[in-house]
Amino acid sequence: MSLTEFEIIARYFKDLTGNDEQVAVGIGDDAAVINIPPGQQLVTSVDTLVSGIHFFADAAPYDIGFKSLAVNISDLAAMAARPRWATLALTMLEGDSAWLQQFAEGFAAVARRYGVSLVGGDLTHGPLAITIQIMGLVEAGKAVTRGGAQTGDRIYVSGCIGGAGLALGCLKKELPTTIQPSTASIERLLRPEPRVALGLELTDLANAAIDISDGLAADLGHILEMSGKGAVIDLDRVPVCDDLMQIENQDERLRMALCAGDDYELCFTVPANRQDKIASVSTALNLPLHCIGTITAGAKLIWRKADGSEYRLEESGYRHF
Amino acid sequence: MSLTEFEIIARYFKDLTGNDEQVAVGIGDDAAVINIPPGQQLVTSVDTLVSGIHFFADAAPYDIGFKSLAVNISDLAAMAARPRWATLALTMLEGDSAWLQQFAEGFAAVARRYGVSLVGGDLTHGPLAITIQIMGLVEAGKAVTRGGAQTGDRIYVSGCIGGAGLALGCLKKELPTTIQPSTASIERLLRPEPRVALGLELTDLANAAIDISDGLAADLGHILEMSGKGAVIDLDRVPVCDDLMQIENQDERLRMALCAGDDYELCFTVPANRQDKIASVSTALNLPLHCIGTITAGAKLIWRKADGSEYRLEESGYRHF
Repeated sequence: MSLTEFEIIARYFKDLTGNDEQVAVGIGDDAAVINIPPGQQLVTSVDTLVSGIHFFADAAPYDIGFKSLAVNISDLAAMAARPRWATLALTMLEGDSAWLQQFAEGFAAVARRYGVSLVGGDLTHGPLAITIQIMGLVEAGKAVTRGGAQTGDRIYVSGCIGGAGLALGCLKKELPTTIQPSTASIERLLRPEPRVALGLELTDLANAAIDISDGLAADLGHILEMSGKGAVIDLDRVPVCDDLMQIENQDERLRMALCAGDDYELCFTVPANRQDKIASVSTALNLPLHCIGTITAGAKLIWRKADGSEYRLEESGYRHF
Repeated sequence: MSLTEFEIIARYFKDLTGNDEQVAVGIGDDAAVINIPPGQQLVTSVDTLVSGIHFFADAAPYDIGFKSLAVNISDLAAMAARPRWATLALTMLEGDSAWLQQFAEGFAAVARRYGVSLVGGDLTHGPLAITIQIMGLVEAGKAVTRGGAQTGDRIYVSGCIGGAGLALGCLKKELPTTIQPSTASIERLLRPEPRVALGLELTDLANAAIDISDGLAADLGHILEMSGKGAVIDLDRVPVCDDLMQIENQDERLRMALCAGDDYELCFTVPANRQDKIASVSTALNLPLHCIGTITAGAKLIWRKADGSEYRLEESGYRHF
């Protein structure tokens, strides 16, 4: 039997509102009403995941629910904001109970881990797509944007990159069958871990930040464009995930590391005189933070090889159209 | 030539951020940053419109942009909140310039009329669907919810209802060809007018409110369920749009008036001793406000005919699955 929108909301999602003192009105009214504490700003972002584009049509519903929320939270991490609330607009062809239950479980796992309450939603009939709006808080004036990079800033990347891209390439059978993604890389692709704790540490530390969703080349490019700066990146300092060593051709390996998206690590820039703080943040979070280069006064992004020569990157990041 | 997400945003939507002093960071970063004035609460709601479900696949893109934002604003009107900001998640198969320009114009017409700034968005590739999250403000504690109706409250409906349903029925060829929708009814369906000014007047006046998107029967039902109340409605006081007199069968006419959605009028309940204020609000807004019945202590919704007998309504409102 098919379910009405209200039955579905009540059955699977209502508990996700949680006991949030700042939510004056939650799910079930025309709109949610939220208290924003004095001295805090609202930080908000929206992302849509479309079946067949952002996830495989036959992906596990738990993973779809997990990733949908995680990638939205990642946008707040990149602003040094604390995620707090979300709305969920779910479009699907049928009110399939088993699918919904698993989707809600994946969504809930991320919501609980990062302290996010679901405050509203919409359920519509149509081709499977998930749009989540994440809302969070930042101390007034403390958000870290893409546009604040200064000449001389050191450029950092958290964790490693390229692993999710390799896992995706394998799942799409675009890579030789001899290449196998590690469990860690598959996990990065299907259930990415937004760098919320790192983002919160970047307040008063970083001048600019972005999450790597479209690939380092594209996303660092956004920082440079918004900041009106250039950069020199030392390729041998880019933290490439171990899996990528299976790709023997160095050019192909570099393209994947620099152009593959979906890793949801943070790329951020830090004044040289604050670099000593980065090491202690890295230790405290048990998360590698690699300095990969320097912001320059020009508008050019230079990828520098170990021998000092310039590497010409042919492929840009993911293009949406 | 197809456009990248960033070109599209820059070309069609960037101006919509406007000069909004409360938007600290607008379109173009990982997330928007918004100042919420002290003493105000954030009010937010999300709605998705899917091609072929919520609008005809060949609908004018201007109308799609118009309606997408208007129906979201309507949810805030029903909370007695002032709309202020929106995000737009647009999923479409191709970056069609002419379509996008007209869509953006329709969206912008509504945004300007109601003082809404676009603060963020996402553009994805897939079957056409539009998800908008509307955000607004209400003085702390002054939101009007669905759950506040009190026994003895008078129940009001603004404007008239059924016109959008008749226009939809005609466009879908579900009604005899002798029936023709008026321009007003077509306008109601394609470019609905959210009752923002009325909503703002309902602060300190109404105990409960909802916008009529799924039909009076369904939406009044939500007020009753959330308030734990019943109601008696006098059918001859329900403001049925003039067009519906073309439907000769009285039962069919009533079903359309009570069950058709898409009118986006407000249904609200007011204590009997505040009824005198309704007349002056109606005059000030030049908007008819009809008292159609009374909230009762039971849980039953009774539709009363002019002769005092009960009318049994067979069809319920729009079901999403």
